[in-house]
Amino acid sequence: MKKNRSVILAEGAFGVLGSKTAACVIRHRQNEVVAVIDSTQAGKTTEEVIGFGGPIPIVCDLAEAMKYLPDSLLVGIAPKGGRLPEEWRAILKEAISLGLHIFSGMHTFLSEDAELAELAREKATALVDLRDVPDDLPVARCLAADVEAFVVLTVGTDCATGKMTVALQMTEAARKRGLKAHFAPTGQTGIYIAGEGIAVDRVIGDFVAGATERLVLEGAEGNDFVFVEGQGSIFHPGYSGVALAMLHGALPDALILCHQPSRVLVSDYDVPIVSLSEAVRIHDAVSAPIKPAPVVGIALNCFDLSEEETLREIEKAEKETGIPATDCIKFGADKLVRAVIDRMNSGGKGKCTSRSNP
Amino acid sequence: MKKNRSVILAEGAFGVLGSKTAACVIRHRQNEVVAVIDSTQAGKTTEEVIGFGGPIPIVCDLAEAMKYLPDSLLVGIAPKGGRLPEEWRAILKEAISLGLHIFSGMHTFLSEDAELAELAREKATALVDLRDVPDDLPVARCLAADVEAFVVLTVGTDCATGKMTVALQMTEAARKRGLKAHFAPTGQTGIYIAGEGIAVDRVIGDFVAGATERLVLEGAEGNDFVFVEGQGSIFHPGYSGVALAMLHGALPDALILCHQPSRVLVSDYDVPIVSLSEAVRIHDAVSAPIKPAPVVGIALNCFDLSEEETLREIEKAEKETGIPATDCIKFGADKLVRAVIDRMNSGGKGKCTSRSNP
Repeated sequence: MKKNRSVILAEGAFGVLGSKTAACVIRHRQNEVVAVIDSTQAGKTTEEVIGFGGPIPIVCDLAEAMKYLPDSLLVGIAPKGGRLPEEWRAILKEAISLGLHIFSGMHTFLSEDAELAELAREKATALVDLRDVPDDLPVARCLAADVEAFVVLTVGTDCATGKMTVALQMTEAARKRGLKAHFAPTGQTGIYIAGEGIAVDRVIGDFVAGATERLVLEGAEGNDFVFVEGQGSIFHPGYSGVALAMLHGALPDALILCHQPSRVLVSDYDVPIVSLSEAVRIHDAVSAPIKPAPVVGIALNCFDLSEEETLREIEKAEKETGIPATDCIKFGADKLVRAVIDRMNSGGKGKCTSRSNP
Repeated sequence: MKKNRSVILAEGAFGVLGSKTAACVIRHRQNEVVAVIDSTQAGKTTEEVIGFGGPIPIVCDLAEAMKYLPDSLLVGIAPKGGRLPEEWRAILKEAISLGLHIFSGMHTFLSEDAELAELAREKATALVDLRDVPDDLPVARCLAADVEAFVVLTVGTDCATGKMTVALQMTEAARKRGLKAHFAPTGQTGIYIAGEGIAVDRVIGDFVAGATERLVLEGAEGNDFVFVEGQGSIFHPGYSGVALAMLHGALPDALILCHQPSRVLVSDYDVPIVSLSEAVRIHDAVSAPIKPAPVVGIALNCFDLSEEETLREIEKAEKETGIPATDCIKFGADKLVRAVIDRMNSGGKGKCTSRSNP
């Protein structure tokens, strides 16, 4: 499916926090985005609104976006309540009629919408539901422990701490060093960016670990490193299960812990964020019985702090844990890649607990 | 749906381990089972094969089972590979034709089988898929922490250690003490026995905790105690995610840890079973950040040990952990109910970490 010239639908919500998908896609695939639809901010550039993305124009509607010759439309916001709002339906119908492919990460599948599906058939365009998952996923079998590639999983003290961005940036930084590195996407945005992957949070509970295992096995083929995009957090009241399943499905050799220093409570919950040292200790505790997966690097998300404050947080994190830390957006991911390589060179590949302690 | 006189289909597999559903239903609802179909053991009683169930006859086919005037048929075995085998289809068609309701815990839903569904409509019988789950489940919101009832969750060092049986037995033991106790079933067998519940392992990853939360909220209404049937184990390579999601969805006040002393490796995996003290420590570690849930009792599953060996294991477990232990099948669940009541009286209801440590 061609998506070299995307227009992103972010009506009424374009921003770093309001449209995570839109912002992430622009950060990592700036050259593939021709315009963003948000009538409330039309006339500005993405750079002006989110601080990156350069001159990508924000336009007021699809008609205006068509001037930039898009080949596809990405739904870059999530509807409240999960159902497709009527005003979006009108935009999607117009886009299909104009021959655009549609990409959506919504829980409600566009391909199951009779009207849109029929129209897409007529116009020979594609409706791609990024959250659609294979129906033949297995229960995990500890197979990921046997791959030769060094497997790294990003985990977090909460949701939305930067796990996808850090995994992507580490993959790119490793490739710049000449290493064969694979990014394994597990959420709709990462899947859109990479053009492959499985939205593990959409998988039936019993098969979440198996889905992750499959991504590691496939990603390890011919690669030295697999960077798996983590989901949720083992400390999150709603999403902890998916996070633990991923840990035991990926059986990583090392973890990168993502954390936002300014956040005090778990997003939308009255539950405190754990400290970094607690987070390291508890990840150690839950990985050890199957395969130890040490935290070898800490990725701080200091988007809301000054450079001086960020440097202070990095120093504090390293002092508290003894583990290398950085902010990948501000200072690049190479420090964390070096930490991973150090771990590989010193400890080598990890093994399942059963094999190392028979 | 009437199921006061069930015949259980367990062809070729009836036994404590070969047909877990059949054995559990007979243990807890002996008076509602009129016959078991297993041609390889026809002529025996269930008591002769599994050690309980009394004189329930094992018969060679459905025709013979009909002599005992069943009102329903329960599929008590799981097909290899998930698909409905052709020979089972023939039996199910015959049963529907004879007017029996069909209960099934298979992953493949009978109600989605066009041929069986059509036949059931004609004969006005029901096809009940015990694993079918509601499609409006929420993300968990820490609401279970607010119920007035004392919530107990059974957890395990592995799958199939007795979590459902222990929760059921504790519910019954609490009721015998005059307490208002509710059993919250989370798997197909418990759902069949109780006539309600949600098969949480069939729920999409993001909503497993939310499904558990709903069961606790509903079960707590008008009850003093809710005993939640746990699933999987946070140490199981395939099912750990479901287990952790349940812990954070139920936000229990106390845990009962189920363990089979004779088991060395996780079932079907080359991974050692954790020690009891490790299991207690790691459950403490993962519950503490949201709401502490101490292990207050240990339920040992010593089905394969002599009484003397069992007593020795109980003593060993108590010495290792300092926590009351017993084998509920051999000695009843009252000791564990007392441990729960002691906890309630000493510590009272647990609270979310945020509220106790603001």
